[in-house]
Amino acid sequence: MTNPTLQFWYEFGSTYTYLSVARIEALASAASVSLVWKPFLLMPVLKHLGAGNPFTANAAKCAYMWKDLIRRAEVLDIPINQPSLYPPNSLLTARVAMLGMDEGWGITFTKEAFRQHWLNDLIIGTDENTGEGLIAAGQNPDETLARALSDTNKEALRHQTQQAVELGLFGSPSFIVNGEVFWGDDRLEEALKWAVRHRTCG
Amino acid sequence: MTNPTLQFWYEFGSTYTYLSVARIEALASAASVSLVWKPFLLMPVLKHLGAGNPFTANAAKCAYMWKDLIRRAEVLDIPINQPSLYPPNSLLTARVAMLGMDEGWGITFTKEAFRQHWLNDLIIGTDENTGEGLIAAGQNPDETLARALSDTNKEALRHQTQQAVELGLFGSPSFIVNGEVFWGDDRLEEALKWAVRHRTCG
Repeated sequence: MTNPTLQFWYEFGSTYTYLSVARIEALASAASVSLVWKPFLLMPVLKHLGAGNPFTANAAKCAYMWKDLIRRAEVLDIPINQPSLYPPNSLLTARVAMLGMDEGWGITFTKEAFRQHWLNDLIIGTDENTGEGLIAAGQNPDETLARALSDTNKEALRHQTQQAVELGLFGSPSFIVNGEVFWGDDRLEEALKWAVRHRTCG
Repeated sequence: MTNPTLQFWYEFGSTYTYLSVARIEALASAASVSLVWKPFLLMPVLKHLGAGNPFTANAAKCAYMWKDLIRRAEVLDIPINQPSLYPPNSLLTARVAMLGMDEGWGITFTKEAFRQHWLNDLIIGTDENTGEGLIAAGQNPDETLARALSDTNKEALRHQTQQAVELGLFGSPSFIVNGEVFWGDDRLEEALKWAVRHRTCG
């Protein structure tokens, strides 16, 4: 019997996604659930749905989001510093992560990009953040960026984003287990339980 | 030392609010936290924020909401049947609840209105739903409706809704403890813990 699998769909510019990136590996490992990391671009998905960033469009919700996020990080014992920019332009980071998932270093890159953004105020999407992420992942920044900006890789990210639309996603983080969608860091435990409960024979 | 207090701000047309109505009394009682029930109208609050119903505006989010709601009800062991209408026009029910909170029968009315909506498909805001709620609360439907439609009571609900704006609310259910806002049924436990931890001398 193989482990059940959870797909982790994420947008680098999403705030609550930081909490999931920080804790998903330990939780999945404890539950014996395998992870597949799926970077995508949320803004085109929202645009397709006729919606926009739910936080920048609503000042009360945005103010609450920051309070709630920091409270949650405290409860979960995750270090956090509010970055100086929101929302970041995550396109470059998502392209690099997309390449990295194909080449085997994408998870390390993703974790370091989030860490730099949320601890050191090195904003996601900037060359500095990307560079730190690539170094942590053992990659040469210049050579890797060239590959990340290839037409093939750009198209792969567009395709993955289109898949997010087709799966009915509308936010980040989202977790998919056997086609069942769970949205939000606060559904991570429930998604993992679902994976274990609906374990199929492998 | 008196019990800490949690204000429960709620909109009758909100789906997740049903979960909170079904479980808040038992959880608050177990935590020795006193409850103050605050019905308000969410749509004017959202309009004030330049926003609308987040579910009717986004088909993917709406489809997910129903799946997630029913999954959550199952996890929490709360019986649920998806009502035939969404969103209901909750104005009449909110007015009656507002009066009921003033006269001491509002909580019983609120619970019965939600119960009829979510178990028997008697839609919130209709005369049938309101009548069942009033009978459960020991009130004469005709006489009570007349009082609920008085200018004084209408104005009281408008005022309470304006307070929701000033408190920074943007959704239902919302919980307030010593000015700290928690949004969403899935933050109920956290709000109660906060109330206990930040207990003031009474």
